[in-house]
Amino acid sequence: MKTIDVYLSPAEVGEAAVEGRVAVVIDVIRATTTMVEALANGARAIIPTASTEEAVKLASSLGRTDTLLCGERKGLKVEGFDLGNSPAEFTADVVRGKQLVMSTTNGTRAFVAAEDSARVLAASFLNLSAVAAALREEDNLLMVCAGKEDRFSLDDALCAGNLIRTLGDLNPADLILNDAARMVLDLSFAHPVDAEFLASTAAGKALVEVGLETDLQLCASLDRYSLVPEMRERRIGLPSSKERS
Amino acid sequence: MKTIDVYLSPAEVGEAAVEGRVAVVIDVIRATTTMVEALANGARAIIPTASTEEAVKLASSLGRTDTLLCGERKGLKVEGFDLGNSPAEFTADVVRGKQLVMSTTNGTRAFVAAEDSARVLAASFLNLSAVAAALREEDNLLMVCAGKEDRFSLDDALCAGNLIRTLGDLNPADLILNDAARMVLDLSFAHPVDAEFLASTAAGKALVEVGLETDLQLCASLDRYSLVPEMRERRIGLPSSKERS
Repeated sequence: MKTIDVYLSPAEVGEAAVEGRVAVVIDVIRATTTMVEALANGARAIIPTASTEEAVKLASSLGRTDTLLCGERKGLKVEGFDLGNSPAEFTADVVRGKQLVMSTTNGTRAFVAAEDSARVLAASFLNLSAVAAALREEDNLLMVCAGKEDRFSLDDALCAGNLIRTLGDLNPADLILNDAARMVLDLSFAHPVDAEFLASTAAGKALVEVGLETDLQLCASLDRYSLVPEMRERRIGLPSSKERS
Repeated sequence: MKTIDVYLSPAEVGEAAVEGRVAVVIDVIRATTTMVEALANGARAIIPTASTEEAVKLASSLGRTDTLLCGERKGLKVEGFDLGNSPAEFTADVVRGKQLVMSTTNGTRAFVAAEDSARVLAASFLNLSAVAAALREEDNLLMVCAGKEDRFSLDDALCAGNLIRTLGDLNPADLILNDAARMVLDLSFAHPVDAEFLASTAAGKALVEVGLETDLQLCASLDRYSLVPEMRERRIGLPSSKERS
């Protein structure tokens, strides 16, 4: 049997027991999508921060030679930062060998809510099957949707639902789901994973409004990579040889 | 056009603007179900409180001649209280002409989250079509699901979804829905409104565990009554002649 509890926002995690469990953090538009893209393109690690101010402070304390400062305000790159939060900016030319300090309010809150878990993985549509494969042998999972300002987000919920569905391919009757997990699983049967659907969500609409609709094509790229980012002491990287390269 | 924002728990309401809007509070298992049943059976009004302690205090300040003290702990009646929170207890013989002080943690939080709205209505499956009829001419709505300890609850979400679906019968294209409203609407097509489904939810399972599964039959009784409870200054009653009877 596999227990899966979904939390629709970091606030929902609250006092829930996370110790000893494996947590998956999901922020489709766009933090975990961008993290996967950056790590796939050779970034060493990502350090998420809850605010641009914290990002600036941390980046200057780390020294700027191999650190990039990344973050957005209302969807667009913060003035003076190296990169915004569009996954397409995180090309190999730009990020290879660098560590990235990334300001992402909702994403950071989700990682913090999960940090007392035994393991904390980062999932997006880009690495859905890889994360599912990593969870095959785990029997006590939680999924934390980043949501938006502690509210439900359809894009994250759809991703969580598809992740459960992929896990359930083994045997759905073996899954013990909380109410939110049952609901997101329903969602995964009701909607396709594509840029058009993402554009209809609140987070997607906000991107379209600032002219970043092309990001949604990338956010919806199912299984573009087969890597599983993991957070260790607030650094998100790949536990394989890649991180040490 | 009709704007409908669904909040999946009182915590989700947060700083959302509620002023000037019409709010619907939903706590299927069991606060709003019990309120509708009690008012249908002649109770004058219900005063929700967030704790049993507050209920005891308020009831004794009101005097006990025409006030009943109602509330549950872990699903069962609080010792020394007149009634628990099973709708079936609230018969005409017991509640007619009385005001009820009702301790309900999640329900009260939902009413408090909505209280700055222009109007605050109470909905359950028992009065779904009546509430929908009352909302036909309103163009800016919010629905607050009581949830459980600030988390998503499938029973409340299903009720909100059915309420939107009933409203959308006019013309679904005229609805402007937030992400959560879209999701609950999907749910309403995926699941039936019946005791069996309610028994599969977290709140329903908790009732079954304490031997109160018969409550679920009543909680699922669609359109048993055609009345619309409304909260005014923390008292929930019927704005019609019934309240004054």
